[in-house]
Amino acid sequence: MSVIPENYADLLETKALAHIATIGPNGDPQSTPVWFGWDGNRVLLTLTKTAQKYLNLQRDPRLALSIVDPKNAYRYLEIRGRVVRIDEDLDRHFVNSMAKKYLNQDVYPWHRPGDEHVVVRVEPERTTHIG
Amino acid sequence: MSVIPENYADLLETKALAHIATIGPNGDPQSTPVWFGWDGNRVLLTLTKTAQKYLNLQRDPRLALSIVDPKNAYRYLEIRGRVVRIDEDLDRHFVNSMAKKYLNQDVYPWHRPGDEHVVVRVEPERTTHIG
Repeated sequence: MSVIPENYADLLETKALAHIATIGPNGDPQSTPVWFGWDGNRVLLTLTKTAQKYLNLQRDPRLALSIVDPKNAYRYLEIRGRVVRIDEDLDRHFVNSMAKKYLNQDVYPWHRPGDEHVVVRVEPERTTHIG
Repeated sequence: MSVIPENYADLLETKALAHIATIGPNGDPQSTPVWFGWDGNRVLLTLTKTAQKYLNLQRDPRLALSIVDPKNAYRYLEIRGRVVRIDEDLDRHFVNSMAKKYLNQDVYPWHRPGDEHVVVRVEPERTTHIG
């Protein structure tokens, strides 16, 4: 039932970065590479509350993200969707899990005192792909 | 005089892909990995006239692109700017030069009869960066 094409779902299990496109305060596009997770239905992002992209998504929940196959630069998946849920990242459980995925470290090493982490859940609505 | 920080200018000489964020017909963000060139002042993109991102940029010339250091996934440059010029890619000179950069081939191998290639010049207006 997912909008993700079966033959691109493997990209959601890679350690590639996702480049996310959000809409800035003046309607201008912004692009940032980020870590991502996938729970089988939604893309999960870890953001801090002071990040520009977090502020953008508060204002306009629409985003797109593109993921290139780490083994084939000419194969990629773009997911367009919207933020459907934002939760506090209690005990930094989620950002630590992302550090495990990307850095193979149990604890996210770049936390700064005062940083408030959130878990952003993105519902995919459509995709484009090549390769 | 460039807005590109000196200590990130090297990223513009890499063979990394740039992920470009554009604005779709309904104001929604879109994200696509693309080849890019750099002439010392402007980012150059090769597009075909039927590409969604080309249609997007005709409507709204604003875009952002993010480039991750191929040697360090935690170092990246985002450029925000706008399209200031679009030219026909006569004799496919530019797309062939991009094939040389990225594929080390003299001739772009994926041209299809009827594809009209253009050279899109992007004026950087501001940047963000990490790492």
